[in-house]
Amino acid sequence: MTAGAPDSRMVIPRTGIGIDVHAFDTEALAESSPQEPGGLFLAGLHWPGERGLAGHSDGDPVAHAAADALFSAAGLGDLGTHFGTDRPEYAGASGTTLLREAARIVRSAGFEIGNIAVQFVARRPKFGPRRAEAEAALTEAAGAPVSISATTSDGLGFTGRSEGIAALATALVYPLQ
Amino acid sequence: MTAGAPDSRMVIPRTGIGIDVHAFDTEALAESSPQEPGGLFLAGLHWPGERGLAGHSDGDPVAHAAADALFSAAGLGDLGTHFGTDRPEYAGASGTTLLREAARIVRSAGFEIGNIAVQFVARRPKFGPRRAEAEAALTEAAGAPVSISATTSDGLGFTGRSEGIAALATALVYPLQ
Amino acid sequence: MTAGAPDSRMVIPRTGIGIDVHAFDTEALAESSPQEPGGLFLAGLHWPGERGLAGHSDGDPVAHAAADALFSAAGLGDLGTHFGTDRPEYAGASGTTLLREAARIVRSAGFEIGNIAVQFVARRPKFGPRRAEAEAALTEAAGAPVSISATTSDGLGFTGRSEGIAALATALVYPLQ
Repeated sequence: MTAGAPDSRMVIPRTGIGIDVHAFDTEALAESSPQEPGGLFLAGLHWPGERGLAGHSDGDPVAHAAADALFSAAGLGDLGTHFGTDRPEYAGASGTTLLREAARIVRSAGFEIGNIAVQFVARRPKFGPRRAEAEAALTEAAGAPVSISATTSDGLGFTGRSEGIAALATALVYPLQ
Repeated sequence: MTAGAPDSRMVIPRTGIGIDVHAFDTEALAESSPQEPGGLFLAGLHWPGERGLAGHSDGDPVAHAAADALFSAAGLGDLGTHFGTDRPEYAGASGTTLLREAARIVRSAGFEIGNIAVQFVARRPKFGPRRAEAEAALTEAAGAPVSISATTSDGLGFTGRSEGIAALATALVYPLQ
Repeated sequence: MTAGAPDSRMVIPRTGIGIDVHAFDTEALAESSPQEPGGLFLAGLHWPGERGLAGHSDGDPVAHAAADALFSAAGLGDLGTHFGTDRPEYAGASGTTLLREAARIVRSAGFEIGNIAVQFVARRPKFGPRRAEAEAALTEAAGAPVSISATTSDGLGFTGRSEGIAALATALVYPLQ
């Protein structure tokens, strides 16, 4: 059932897809406290002063889409399979923690990671000035290159109404021989 | 106009993308009958008791996105090109039938299929318990590994309002030499 | 931090993702003039008589998603990085101009382009009859195969309400050695 490699010496990469959406939490800033600092967690970074997403530190759609793309490429299910409500040790885990663990699981299953590419859709925050910092944070977590880009939906849909942030990711992995 | 292979001995894979959306059919369950059993057709499986999508058995967004990703990777158009209204023999065809035929068309054009990865966005059904069954059904249809994952849109947009199900897919194919 | 190549002789491709959305411009046809011909610019083609997207000639979501997928695959940021408001020479540039320039930037950074695949979501225009023409236009601009497909969102969301057009793209690039 697996595809025949055109050349048996070739390593055949596998592609994967990841989607994640989180709604803004209208109470996030009001709840700000030393224990719960408020602000947005996105693309492996903390954005103080930006409205947060529901789920607080565990609501990073960029890191989640990246992790889902890895699982998808490796054929290992999704975030719910590995970090679902039956795994309370991951409740509240940061996006980088989940991405690091996803990369470990994928490698344990016999794959190397080629790269991960994520684009998120949001009106804010302005991403360009912190792109390099965000890519470094997720690249370190995944142990493989993670590129991150941003766009808007031109005022349309739930991202255009600033109800939430959506992220799409793709990844390539390789079976180790 | 084709990209130069960095190494002429290398087989260069091609990536493709597929998107499909189907609206829920509010009359689907009411119409249930022995000939038209009702329920949902999703990811190559029948989900009795779940609200169906418009199009009944031919409204499987996971299988359709997978087929579109194959056509996209091979540069062979899309579902409308091959199974459009001018091809009545495909009216009402199941998602697995369309995916099997898409894989045959792509191979006939000189490509081998590396893998297909699909993620769908929906509040229901709960997918984890039937993931292996769904992946086996679509993998058998495509003759190549199909991974399927699921997520929600956190209550946002048309999937969050349970108006329909969206699926995104990516695929890798290889030109045979 | 880069992924280890399973075989040092292998060229490891990189995958990228691109998303673009443009809203329809309700005033586009009214403003039609010899200098501003009106109609839609989509997939590298002019569609006279179709309602235009905001941004006029520079609002082609298919070409923009393709360019973003190239930048994403190469880890070079996004459209805003290269063609943002601080680069007024690109104001009003056509989609094919931006895609051509994106391909040049990606090659200058040491990558070859494998292929680009784009699917757009819209109720109109009917794409099949002009697919080959559109693929030829964007393939010429990118200097690599660009496949383009189309689908609808079954009446759902902003594309279903004909408020705008969304496009998703994926691309593969290869580091030159």
